[in-house]
Amino acid sequence: MASLNLINAAAARLAGHSRRTPLLNAPLLDRVAGRRVFVKAECLQWTGSFKFRGGWSAVSALTPDQRARGVIAFSSGNHAQGVALAAARHGAPCTILMPADAPGVKIDNTRAYGATVVLYDRARQDRDALGAALAANHGLTLIRPYDDPQVIAGQASVGLEIAEQATEAGVTTADVLTCCGGGGLTAGIALALAAHAPGLRVRPAEPEGFDDTARSLATGTRQRNATLSGSICDAIVTPTPGDLTFPILQRLCGPGLVVTEDQVLRAMALAFAHLRIVVEPGGAVALAAALFSSDLPETVICTASGGNVDPGIFARALAA
Amino acid sequence: MASLNLINAAAARLAGHSRRTPLLNAPLLDRVAGRRVFVKAECLQWTGSFKFRGGWSAVSALTPDQRARGVIAFSSGNHAQGVALAAARHGAPCTILMPADAPGVKIDNTRAYGATVVLYDRARQDRDALGAALAANHGLTLIRPYDDPQVIAGQASVGLEIAEQATEAGVTTADVLTCCGGGGLTAGIALALAAHAPGLRVRPAEPEGFDDTARSLATGTRQRNATLSGSICDAIVTPTPGDLTFPILQRLCGPGLVVTEDQVLRAMALAFAHLRIVVEPGGAVALAAALFSSDLPETVICTASGGNVDPGIFARALAA
Repeated sequence: MASLNLINAAAARLAGHSRRTPLLNAPLLDRVAGRRVFVKAECLQWTGSFKFRGGWSAVSALTPDQRARGVIAFSSGNHAQGVALAAARHGAPCTILMPADAPGVKIDNTRAYGATVVLYDRARQDRDALGAALAANHGLTLIRPYDDPQVIAGQASVGLEIAEQATEAGVTTADVLTCCGGGGLTAGIALALAAHAPGLRVRPAEPEGFDDTARSLATGTRQRNATLSGSICDAIVTPTPGDLTFPILQRLCGPGLVVTEDQVLRAMALAFAHLRIVVEPGGAVALAAALFSSDLPETVICTASGGNVDPGIFARALAA
Repeated sequence: MASLNLINAAAARLAGHSRRTPLLNAPLLDRVAGRRVFVKAECLQWTGSFKFRGGWSAVSALTPDQRARGVIAFSSGNHAQGVALAAARHGAPCTILMPADAPGVKIDNTRAYGATVVLYDRARQDRDALGAALAANHGLTLIRPYDDPQVIAGQASVGLEIAEQATEAGVTTADVLTCCGGGGLTAGIALALAAHAPGLRVRPAEPEGFDDTARSLATGTRQRNATLSGSICDAIVTPTPGDLTFPILQRLCGPGLVVTEDQVLRAMALAFAHLRIVVEPGGAVALAAALFSSDLPETVICTASGGNVDPGIFARALAA
């Protein structure tokens, strides 16, 4: 199968460059959940999210000539930082298109990872046209956040590690809950587990009101979110499941899970108290589902997919 | 050397039971520090601190008969939780003596790990006499927090892992900064590194006003702290270096480092932002020294020795 070859090749390129993040658990967290909960702590990955894997996979798959010309990505968040650091470590020029009203710390961090940040006016400029023009003029390769086979193959390395670490922990049967936006991480993990740990079933988790994937899986056709703003889980809010990712999810995943914003904040506070990791709201959706959903087996594995969170929002979670 | 045999035997007993915590670093943290900083994230250890290692080492070194009678420890903090979980996993009864005014969450957590918590009145009861009576009546073995060869040998496993992980990261020469209270962790790491990574020199870090170890190393005789209260770094405040630990520190460590409370809070916030780990004040002292001291080499490794922190204090660090 083509995708498995891509996954194995991406894993080989990532070896020694991405961090093998720990699969954490804690007796006191299991007590709260009433089940065994393992957390794949991708917030400890380079740049604070799994996005570094997809970025590295994509950049490392380019020809030397493509790399020398450089890459471009559209993102104000984790994808931007993941691609920026991956490109920098390959010596590839990197341009990131960000809205001018993005938080200053995200712009600063993306620049600190070595990218050239181009700001645009959300209200007055067409991002896609601007990006296409930049890419054409400079011969840049666009790295999409999830609808790219090399990006999905990179995120699949999370699944390969979960398969190994579950075996080390003696777990052969479990639901694996993923924080799901466009579906790159979910599709990648699902492909890896289908090949290496068939007893582990993937289920995407989403915030209430932004559950396009759950509804798409339930109805069999791709659904859209009514709005894209207003969620604290901004990192995983996308209009609709991806062209490439949705057929994979349909084939391999169980039903989606939906959590409330309050559950997400409580999950962040419990990860703070019992695992001592920093998880951002969009990265805590799967843990919230693991802790607070009723429709789950005795053992659950979930991704803590990112940890880039505004201190104010984190303090709000701690106070909740 | 007797201590190396103890260390190797403790490591063998810990294998598969303690967590091999990651050695983290981040490009943006290095920028702040102006040097390369690696962080041994013991906040990700079972019970949220390195103390689980010493507890496990001590409990697992007992005879079956001693284990069946049980263990006792005096602590309101990380040592209590480490010993409690280690004992529970050995099926050994565990009694923890805690002051009645200890934070409720610490008492609850220690009970949740399976220990019998005996509360005493700090003002009216003599803790040592009470503990001695309990130990004598029930045949319990006392596990001291640092002045115990098996506890030091257990903490030394942090040093064995640092030696391996530094090699993996290509680091052969560095200062290794430790959060230092009674000196169990510092002595253990120093013994392990002297044997396995002679290019790595240990230096204890302490909070301003509670720098008994730095002053003891500087003067060559054990100094005492003027007071034991009033520090946010309560986890590492002890009256004076240990009987067993100080001679080891004197033989193997470089000069101590002292940091301010404000630097500790800033280190906690930077670990939040760039490493996405939760570090308690006493566990952030070495990172604060790594980030803000001038008298350091190009590469520094430091322990983030614990992550059990009150949400209010953590929020204060984020707001600073």
